[in-house]
Amino acid sequence: MKNVAVFGAGRIGRIHASNLAALPGVRLQYVCDAVPSAAAELAQQLGAQVAELDQVFADPGVDAVAICSPTSTHSDLIARAAAAGKHIFCEKPVDLSVPRAEAVARAVAEAGVACMIGFQRRFDPTFNEARRRLDAGEIGRPEMLVITSRDPGAPPVDYLKASGGIFRDMLIHDLDVFRWILCADGDEAAWLSATASVLTDPAVAEAGDWDSTAVTIKTRLGRLCQINTSRRAAYGYDQRFELLGSDGMLQCGNQTPSQVLQWDARGVRADKPEPFFLQRYAAAYRLEIEHFFDCLQSGQPFKTTVEDGVKAQQLADAATLSAQSGQPVQF
Amino acid sequence: MKNVAVFGAGRIGRIHASNLAALPGVRLQYVCDAVPSAAAELAQQLGAQVAELDQVFADPGVDAVAICSPTSTHSDLIARAAAAGKHIFCEKPVDLSVPRAEAVARAVAEAGVACMIGFQRRFDPTFNEARRRLDAGEIGRPEMLVITSRDPGAPPVDYLKASGGIFRDMLIHDLDVFRWILCADGDEAAWLSATASVLTDPAVAEAGDWDSTAVTIKTRLGRLCQINTSRRAAYGYDQRFELLGSDGMLQCGNQTPSQVLQWDARGVRADKPEPFFLQRYAAAYRLEIEHFFDCLQSGQPFKTTVEDGVKAQQLADAATLSAQSGQPVQF
Amino acid sequence: MKNVAVFGAGRIGRIHASNLAALPGVRLQYVCDAVPSAAAELAQQLGAQVAELDQVFADPGVDAVAICSPTSTHSDLIARAAAAGKHIFCEKPVDLSVPRAEAVARAVAEAGVACMIGFQRRFDPTFNEARRRLDAGEIGRPEMLVITSRDPGAPPVDYLKASGGIFRDMLIHDLDVFRWILCADGDEAAWLSATASVLTDPAVAEAGDWDSTAVTIKTRLGRLCQINTSRRAAYGYDQRFELLGSDGMLQCGNQTPSQVLQWDARGVRADKPEPFFLQRYAAAYRLEIEHFFDCLQSGQPFKTTVEDGVKAQQLADAATLSAQSGQPVQF
Amino acid sequence: MKNVAVFGAGRIGRIHASNLAALPGVRLQYVCDAVPSAAAELAQQLGAQVAELDQVFADPGVDAVAICSPTSTHSDLIARAAAAGKHIFCEKPVDLSVPRAEAVARAVAEAGVACMIGFQRRFDPTFNEARRRLDAGEIGRPEMLVITSRDPGAPPVDYLKASGGIFRDMLIHDLDVFRWILCADGDEAAWLSATASVLTDPAVAEAGDWDSTAVTIKTRLGRLCQINTSRRAAYGYDQRFELLGSDGMLQCGNQTPSQVLQWDARGVRADKPEPFFLQRYAAAYRLEIEHFFDCLQSGQPFKTTVEDGVKAQQLADAATLSAQSGQPVQF
Repeated sequence: MKNVAVFGAGRIGRIHASNLAALPGVRLQYVCDAVPSAAAELAQQLGAQVAELDQVFADPGVDAVAICSPTSTHSDLIARAAAAGKHIFCEKPVDLSVPRAEAVARAVAEAGVACMIGFQRRFDPTFNEARRRLDAGEIGRPEMLVITSRDPGAPPVDYLKASGGIFRDMLIHDLDVFRWILCADGDEAAWLSATASVLTDPAVAEAGDWDSTAVTIKTRLGRLCQINTSRRAAYGYDQRFELLGSDGMLQCGNQTPSQVLQWDARGVRADKPEPFFLQRYAAAYRLEIEHFFDCLQSGQPFKTTVEDGVKAQQLADAATLSAQSGQPVQF
Repeated sequence: MKNVAVFGAGRIGRIHASNLAALPGVRLQYVCDAVPSAAAELAQQLGAQVAELDQVFADPGVDAVAICSPTSTHSDLIARAAAAGKHIFCEKPVDLSVPRAEAVARAVAEAGVACMIGFQRRFDPTFNEARRRLDAGEIGRPEMLVITSRDPGAPPVDYLKASGGIFRDMLIHDLDVFRWILCADGDEAAWLSATASVLTDPAVAEAGDWDSTAVTIKTRLGRLCQINTSRRAAYGYDQRFELLGSDGMLQCGNQTPSQVLQWDARGVRADKPEPFFLQRYAAAYRLEIEHFFDCLQSGQPFKTTVEDGVKAQQLADAATLSAQSGQPVQF
Repeated sequence: MKNVAVFGAGRIGRIHASNLAALPGVRLQYVCDAVPSAAAELAQQLGAQVAELDQVFADPGVDAVAICSPTSTHSDLIARAAAAGKHIFCEKPVDLSVPRAEAVARAVAEAGVACMIGFQRRFDPTFNEARRRLDAGEIGRPEMLVITSRDPGAPPVDYLKASGGIFRDMLIHDLDVFRWILCADGDEAAWLSATASVLTDPAVAEAGDWDSTAVTIKTRLGRLCQINTSRRAAYGYDQRFELLGSDGMLQCGNQTPSQVLQWDARGVRADKPEPFFLQRYAAAYRLEIEHFFDCLQSGQPFKTTVEDGVKAQQLADAATLSAQSGQPVQF
Repeated sequence: MKNVAVFGAGRIGRIHASNLAALPGVRLQYVCDAVPSAAAELAQQLGAQVAELDQVFADPGVDAVAICSPTSTHSDLIARAAAAGKHIFCEKPVDLSVPRAEAVARAVAEAGVACMIGFQRRFDPTFNEARRRLDAGEIGRPEMLVITSRDPGAPPVDYLKASGGIFRDMLIHDLDVFRWILCADGDEAAWLSATASVLTDPAVAEAGDWDSTAVTIKTRLGRLCQINTSRRAAYGYDQRFELLGSDGMLQCGNQTPSQVLQWDARGVRADKPEPFFLQRYAAAYRLEIEHFFDCLQSGQPFKTTVEDGVKAQQLADAATLSAQSGQPVQF
């Protein structure tokens, strides 16, 4: 039985808490949150106790922590958990600052604890099946990756101001997908060019951010990746990629709430995609936390390590710089 | 808190037991099975007790029972549960004999308990969305229903011999879908013609059954329904229907494990459907047991009553008779 | 160079005339029509001459005739063309009366001319590709065929009154598809049950016809076929079939004017099917008339003979009888 | 009646010649080709005469010429036809050299003849329908365009050496689509970044070319366009684009030879796209030449002028430069 503490009882904390509470062999022991009532409500619902952070770190019975608190707290909590000898699951990103993220990665390595970063797309059944077929050689050698990633609408301006910008906040996932899919054999980015615009709402520009981006990456082996993103798709949450290989292409489509087609005078209408990430990645969230505990149990390495978190952050920094300067970045 | 006993710890019993155990406000108290070790294993896994039937019926703390035992036990267990004042969830069918099913329906009515029959397709998100749009008038008045229902492969001959035949065992679901979709406004079957063949395996004929059927039903209002079934689809479990209305058509497709398309020299390949009912109807099983307890709580009527079970059984009998005689049946 | 006369300068006559006029090695010599101005217009447009029927039959330079005049004239014109030693392409049906159709088939056989009936669906690229894969064994042995055939709207009541009824006028095509696809190896219908309703417009009933039908056919080998038709689909002309075989299924979908998908707040919308037969079967009409002349040239048998026309007519008669009596028909 | 001469009796010349010969009001008078037997064969097949270029330019009865000869001859033939007062249809590109293309555009303007460049994609029914809906406001303001353009296989190295490189030879079409779709309101490219690789065959590198490219363009209004291309798609000719707008997305898919879906143990397989441009753009070629003569008749402007040809060439030059230098280009 693994005893676990969850830090953060907000939207994503509640998802991870209830998913892990349902796993055999895992016990949700503590819930911590800066807002006591939020912690209390979640703890009560899942049969856990409310605790302070110090109490968690001091309790030798706690095996692992799940960090679901705001981004600004991640690196500090990882470092403290590592120092306390707890295994760590941390929501992306490691930290908005690459140097701090790198420092944390070193701290984790020194402490010898296991640390997994929550890039949940690697656990999405569709994306995962594409990776499986790539590994099985079904489309030969990978050559070009096109990622389309669009939110249903921009978050509030206050959120944007603290987000680190669209590349660090939103594309961090796509940049991780790039590495996971196009660099599965150890290849890495060699050249990156990004450009960006504000097309949906002038308030985004006033917050110093962009809402629409176009990124191109060339790898050391000459493979090409294009990422296009927008903060607003009128038809919902759009999460697709396609990978051209020497023998074919894998194309990952969206999930829909139902498989109903409506044929009428206007045409043949299918559902639009699931509305947002909580619905689209519901299975992925379940599978990633299961993976975390499976690996703790078996000693197998995680699919997404703290090093992956650091590398995605480096790419996000490079993309930000490129979009600001209008010039490509070499690695 | 509702206390529940599950009868039957086989494949379907385990599904219902773990789904209901996860519901807030519901407690799985007892598990009963003719095989003590099966009962014990399920009870232990879900924190329940093993019990004999008599003990369950005698315990005034038990609010409801979920009957997931073999078909031949259904009517007797419904009658006993009704007599004991327990609310009842029973897997389809009520009974392979229409008179016995009718007797049980009367017993339930007299006892004043609630009894829901597990026609899970009514809870499938895709089928349910089609019904919702029909009710919302999106395709006008319903006119023609075409149901395609194919298993991935025939069950063992021993199963077939005790099954009541393909119409009672397999088409019972499709006949219920016919009533649920094409007779949503109270219309009913007026004329039915069925024919059947053995096309997949001569052993099916030796068991006195068929593996391929074609049923046509005309309703009192002149609406038309065609059902085609096979025990074997080489591509998996095929569960679709389409409803033509005066203003359009609703077409319900299969679910797939992933949304990957593979483009290669052979064409563009999508996943085949989910392999069988446990996967295809996983969400439906979860939603139907939730519906059962929601209705117990709210006092709302069930979507599928014991009367629905009786009526589907009558249609299955008529189809069997029609296929045997080569003549249509009038209602 | 084959010299050809076209009888009938209406909608279908114009299509066949311009298709054959564009074929290398074929010369459209004459156009005949009861309405002189219609004949003149078509003849002028395609560089042909207007002629009377007698003139065509008497001209030894005429190799073949294409009969595109009203249904009531078909059998007489086939007989006269056969007597004159002309090869014959005739639009479906041979004749609304089976005995007359049979007599005509005998006359053709005795005259030793070639006679092809215009079941254009056998030349539709999609349907044809399905038949090719069936022949290639890609889905194993055929077992069940489901045909969906829906017009965009009912024709005028005057048309209906002279049409011979929906089975002879509309389902004749579907009954031919049944024989072409499910009986490709020489199997034939053994049992047929049909039922029908008036659901779209009471005027159809007043004309003594139906607008919605459901037909089931069992073959000598026990294969099953279901046909569903309606005179009205709000979404256009719906022409599909699917064939279940022992190793898989072939599913033939509709064609659309474009491959545009529109994603918006309402969903993901594809085009509805082509509006009616002239658009849907444009390629089929071109390919069938090319096939006619190819066979004349090569001496190969036609894909659709006058015997096929007679057999489809027999099935249409049986379906009409079954729908009227409520009883199945045995062959 | 318009009299026309076709220059070039190769693959594309034969297509345009037979399409224009079938148009009412158009007469194919002359065919010219450096290979006399090629000219003779095409002329005979379509009832035209073989001629020398000088004879065509000197014949006052010739209204228009269709230039389908090798790329290296285009600018010279346009200039000579303009000087002779003939209207001009010319296959893309105007010239591989931008200055020469610009000079030709000036010559055309001075001569006052009409000159259309054969960017056939603007006439593809699917692409055209997307543009129509964009113009109709169905997806609001355009924001991002993603173009996928892949050939089924690289041409011979000798072809590549004379092609001007992948950007001028292959992407010229995609760059025109960019202007046609994303700049429909007069917007133009402001910034372009391109990168490219050799991933399919080292012989391409030896020919001094690339086979895989990734281009990003930002317009003056901040709209974003990404183009990904490859000389080799194992699944055939892949020609798609998708346009995100403020109210939705238009997605243009490939055409397929048939609408057959094959369901079997491997999955559900649709046809791969049409094999190459002759099949995919068959309708577009027909419609573009019809447009040419319609405009000559009506005096309406062409959809694709010589200025469009020059501007696409400028973008192709910029992309080549960017891919060579690794730096973006500003306009």
